[in-house]
Amino acid sequence: MNETLHDHPVTPRTNEEKDKLKRRLKRIEGQVRGVEKMIEEERYCVDILIQISAIQSALKNVGYGVTERHMKHCVKDAIANGDGDESIEELMAVLKQFSK
Amino acid sequence: MNETLHDHPVTPRTNEEKDKLKRRLKRIEGQVRGVEKMIEEERYCVDILIQISAIQSALKNVGYGVTERHMKHCVKDAIANGDGDESIEELMAVLKQFSK
Amino acid sequence: MNETLHDHPVTPRTNEEKDKLKRRLKRIEGQVRGVEKMIEEERYCVDILIQISAIQSALKNVGYGVTERHMKHCVKDAIANGDGDESIEELMAVLKQFSK
Amino acid sequence: MNETLHDHPVTPRTNEEKDKLKRRLKRIEGQVRGVEKMIEEERYCVDILIQISAIQSALKNVGYGVTERHMKHCVKDAIANGDGDESIEELMAVLKQFSK
Repeated sequence: MNETLHDHPVTPRTNEEKDKLKRRLKRIEGQVRGVEKMIEEERYCVDILIQISAIQSALKNVGYGVTERHMKHCVKDAIANGDGDESIEELMAVLKQFSK
Repeated sequence: MNETLHDHPVTPRTNEEKDKLKRRLKRIEGQVRGVEKMIEEERYCVDILIQISAIQSALKNVGYGVTERHMKHCVKDAIANGDGDESIEELMAVLKQFSK
Repeated sequence: MNETLHDHPVTPRTNEEKDKLKRRLKRIEGQVRGVEKMIEEERYCVDILIQISAIQSALKNVGYGVTERHMKHCVKDAIANGDGDESIEELMAVLKQFSK
Repeated sequence: MNETLHDHPVTPRTNEEKDKLKRRLKRIEGQVRGVEKMIEEERYCVDILIQISAIQSALKNVGYGVTERHMKHCVKDAIANGDGDESIEELMAVLKQFSK
């Protein structure tokens, strides 16, 4: 996927939406730093794997939130404007990449 | 999974192994910060999803590395000491959690 | 998810679409039977795992095809009728279940 | 992955193990046939996706069972014989393929 259809979401994210997303990403950033610390402290491999798996879940949830909002705004808008198929195909491509 | 079998890997990670892991995690941390910036800059949902998917891949690769080393040291050692099954079951539990 | 929004796709699948889907599912059915045969023939675990992984890929591809068509017909139609959000939330729920 | 390390599991599967695996695969085969019937009956896309997702879970569980037994017999045996690393690398390769 080289170029996407837009530069911005069709409906700008509200400040509340942005703050919520940024808080979740900040927490994920902290979790990644936590794993670095676990490496430093010679922690057991399985404990590290459990932590990495928690980060994966948190990231996946952020991805779901972004996907759902994308469908409710950008894809919906594209469909209303007769460009639905292109928008749906773009989304399918990224969903396939995701589940790899 | 409430308690894991050990506090440390059976063979301490070498400094080289630790540095490599920390470099990869630092890069992932930077990628997460990059997504925060994309939110700030009102970037398009699909571009954000592509970035999140790249972080997932990078994390998965760190997980594979940790898993392989765990098998080659901790699980191998457990097997040599007759505690293989317990160690294998512990690993299976975290692998299942991972693929959720 | 207890009850879904419809009994049928909003646009009936064409005979060609149905035949294509059924052919792919028949092939998957054959692959599953192939694994049964591998068990019977005492085949090596890793060979069996490779085969199971191939079936997973094939099923995932069928799922992608069904999802894309669903978006291009049912979700698009729901959006046109002002019921988009409900339809999108239904789809998100099944996508989350999928990636588990 | 072109060639695997063995033709057979190092410890033959017991009849009970084989029967259990075959029963689970038979059930999966029936689930796949069920999806074919759903296509035939023009069933709603989301109902089909829920069913496909159930098959994925069932297959994944068979895969976990085969993996665990593989570790407890073939990998354990390889480690005892000093061929552990090769066996572990073979398993890692198939685990990576799986999670794609």
